[in-house]
Amino acid sequence: MSTDARPRRDLGRAAQTRAARDLPPWDLEADVVIVGFGGAGACAALEAHAAGADVLLLERMSGGGGTTALSTGQIYLGGGTAIQKACGFEDSSEEMAKYLLASCGPGADDAKIRLFCDRSVAHFDWLVAHGVPFKASYYGEGSYTPTDDCLSYSGSELAWPYRDLARPAPRGHTVQQDGIEAGGRLMRALVAAVAATPVRVQSDTLVETLVVDDARRVVGVVAKVDGREQLIGARRGVILTAGGFIQNKAMVERYAPLLRKCRFRAASDGDDGRGIRMGMGAGGAAIRMDVGCIVLPFTVPKGLLRGIFVNRRGQRFVNEDAYQTVVGERALLGENGEVFLILDDAIFERPFPPTEIAAVEDTIEDLERSLGCPAGSLQHTVAYYNEHAAHGGDPLFHKAADHLVPLLKPPFAALDYRTEAALYTVFTLGGLHTDTDGQVISPDGTIVAGLYAAGRTTSGLAAQGYSSGLSIADATFFGRRAGAAAAASRS
Amino acid sequence: MSTDARPRRDLGRAAQTRAARDLPPWDLEADVVIVGFGGAGACAALEAHAAGADVLLLERMSGGGGTTALSTGQIYLGGGTAIQKACGFEDSSEEMAKYLLASCGPGADDAKIRLFCDRSVAHFDWLVAHGVPFKASYYGEGSYTPTDDCLSYSGSELAWPYRDLARPAPRGHTVQQDGIEAGGRLMRALVAAVAATPVRVQSDTLVETLVVDDARRVVGVVAKVDGREQLIGARRGVILTAGGFIQNKAMVERYAPLLRKCRFRAASDGDDGRGIRMGMGAGGAAIRMDVGCIVLPFTVPKGLLRGIFVNRRGQRFVNEDAYQTVVGERALLGENGEVFLILDDAIFERPFPPTEIAAVEDTIEDLERSLGCPAGSLQHTVAYYNEHAAHGGDPLFHKAADHLVPLLKPPFAALDYRTEAALYTVFTLGGLHTDTDGQVISPDGTIVAGLYAAGRTTSGLAAQGYSSGLSIADATFFGRRAGAAAAASRS
Repeated sequence: MSTDARPRRDLGRAAQTRAARDLPPWDLEADVVIVGFGGAGACAALEAHAAGADVLLLERMSGGGGTTALSTGQIYLGGGTAIQKACGFEDSSEEMAKYLLASCGPGADDAKIRLFCDRSVAHFDWLVAHGVPFKASYYGEGSYTPTDDCLSYSGSELAWPYRDLARPAPRGHTVQQDGIEAGGRLMRALVAAVAATPVRVQSDTLVETLVVDDARRVVGVVAKVDGREQLIGARRGVILTAGGFIQNKAMVERYAPLLRKCRFRAASDGDDGRGIRMGMGAGGAAIRMDVGCIVLPFTVPKGLLRGIFVNRRGQRFVNEDAYQTVVGERALLGENGEVFLILDDAIFERPFPPTEIAAVEDTIEDLERSLGCPAGSLQHTVAYYNEHAAHGGDPLFHKAADHLVPLLKPPFAALDYRTEAALYTVFTLGGLHTDTDGQVISPDGTIVAGLYAAGRTTSGLAAQGYSSGLSIADATFFGRRAGAAAAASRS
Repeated sequence: MSTDARPRRDLGRAAQTRAARDLPPWDLEADVVIVGFGGAGACAALEAHAAGADVLLLERMSGGGGTTALSTGQIYLGGGTAIQKACGFEDSSEEMAKYLLASCGPGADDAKIRLFCDRSVAHFDWLVAHGVPFKASYYGEGSYTPTDDCLSYSGSELAWPYRDLARPAPRGHTVQQDGIEAGGRLMRALVAAVAATPVRVQSDTLVETLVVDDARRVVGVVAKVDGREQLIGARRGVILTAGGFIQNKAMVERYAPLLRKCRFRAASDGDDGRGIRMGMGAGGAAIRMDVGCIVLPFTVPKGLLRGIFVNRRGQRFVNEDAYQTVVGERALLGENGEVFLILDDAIFERPFPPTEIAAVEDTIEDLERSLGCPAGSLQHTVAYYNEHAAHGGDPLFHKAADHLVPLLKPPFAALDYRTEAALYTVFTLGGLHTDTDGQVISPDGTIVAGLYAAGRTTSGLAAQGYSSGLSIADATFFGRRAGAAAAASRS
């Protein structure tokens, strides 16, 4: 992961396919060739093998992991998993689908969401059967669990308006591991599961482009190993699980310029969009390329939810208890990242991750002046909020009652959540258009023969209104789907 | 143009290129083959011919026109055109570039904007030399001129914050024609100019896909004429000027789902994205596909600018004198299209185009209740606005003083500018990635040999913060660039 700006190396010509006709015989062959050994690639390999395919897994780094290993190891799952039941939470695939359809839109992929919700319990069981450990415990609300606990509310399920649209249930399932290393724990389990199969893993292998036959079917890849080209044939299909594109500055500029302002890119260095570009070059459409998961981390300690977010005009713009991805999206896209969290002395705490204090004043009027808000604007916002919070109400944004206290005790502080000060965290959600079997779809809506994809190389379950754990859910669930489909394919 | 929903016909396989190697000899050949006879295609043809190329112009409809002919015939031009000078307005390419760079971002194409501003005066002269009539007269502010006058402020030049970033000048140049038929007048001029050259025009010709050679260079097109395939070779290049994709429901759903809510699609039926899909199939990248020009027409009569726009929470969210595309963008993307324009009896007028009156009440408190705004919210917004408007100020949004009057005289009305009620007007701004010569660029940033594009088939000058006239500017200016570049190309 990285917050620094650094020069981008030449990204080559991933989108320029090579013609099988012009190439010498394959150096290596497999039924199914998988590009990228993160969560999606691992699950694709396991299922392709289970379906009887001879599988080759290629990874540019020296070992499996990808961005999944750097994640918080939280997987969005529900519908009544063993953990949900053990912890006494009722859930159903219907309620889960209601929530995701409402929160992941507009433009959410209905078919993917419905299939995923229907099979979410089975997917949880599959992960457990493949050695991924979960503790039967409930942690609470929050984007990750610093303990080895499992279950948490990792989205806006409890927040307005979603709490009224679908029965809330905690669906963030974090892999059992102390600290924030649960993503690493998840990948160690999946790497071990792959190692227990005859799946061949070849690391330090940078796949450069796809190989197509005369009918433009994808039949292999060209990789670079130790500076030499290696030609690898895929009898049944190639699966691209090579991550997103947040580390590719030029692609972000072209497709998603609004995401540039986020200082922290939550991705491995390999997320340079190569998988997406290879897919586009072979005829795949890349869709929803503007969309990112934008996290504004401000909920630790949790008491900060009792503050109020305001924009440069002193107006509130979101319910602060909406999930921090929703707050991040509204703050960055709606308010150009120019927002402050207003606190009084009674609720003041230092946030983690830390951010600057933009101003501290004895009156809201002075705070308003220090922040450069229009005269009277913040005073009205706070007075209106206080008046209703005193009675447990928030008519503007319906924040839950337990976060509502009037801000009365001086001094008053404004925490700086502008993009320059705060650690806006981002990764891309746009990518190759795939069906529920991971088959890559062309701009015309037809299938690109021989080509599959999963994980952040694709546009998946979530577009806007992200809930934590959806990307690993996407990667593992649709990675499995792609592996099974590619194994069943015949050229 | 169309507001109705209707079934989409099968859109074929535009993105699947054909291999020259598999095809019989060309039925027809030209140096430069242009797909689409709107403003961009016409200008490309004229310049390609001027550069010595043998040109063939193909149009799916029965004659030239395209979406340009359906437009208001307004072209964004400046830097000191003959009309600007005749009307006494000072302008420079520097000030024009400052405005466009500030208003078309983030992610504006700097190189295109700078080149266009540098050559805008020459482009105006070229249009005049090719028979496009302009009257040396100033109309005022507004998105189009219902008279035969020429010059108007067609963007946010006079609005905050742009008025402080660049010296304002009116740059909307409307072709001389009474009524709103100036787009038709523009195309009649360009069609006549093309007819005066040896450029061959073949209408009723639907280009279905591109033809590539073994090196994936674009060398021709496959067209459908009278139900039969026609193979057309392009010795120097193919130019795609086939419009945007707002008429393709599936593409809007995939790439720009937020635009679905706009009821009025400002485009000819041909804007089904075929040009973009053909370009993608040949290896071009389509960028900024989420972006649209979203017009919320509410400024006729102009006195309505003295009203205030509020969202469902009774908050203002934009300066009402920002250009109506900016208001449309903020209303649709920021407020989910749930906005009202609040008026008092002193300024009440019926809007054109008409919209519903959501509520009329004797007090703001009652209006607030009727609209379902939180108690006290709209009352505060109006009181705060009135207090400052009485002194010619708008501390929240800096609306210009001539539109500031307190709203005091009952009854008070709320005009309904929600998406179901008002005529949100939209066309797409995303499309093929091109350089300043119209050469189509691949996802890797390399050139797609033999392929050019212009107009709404491309991502052009404007992304966000659209000013009226930029699309015809884009089409005619970069259409010319593409024509000249393709003519100069050698395979």
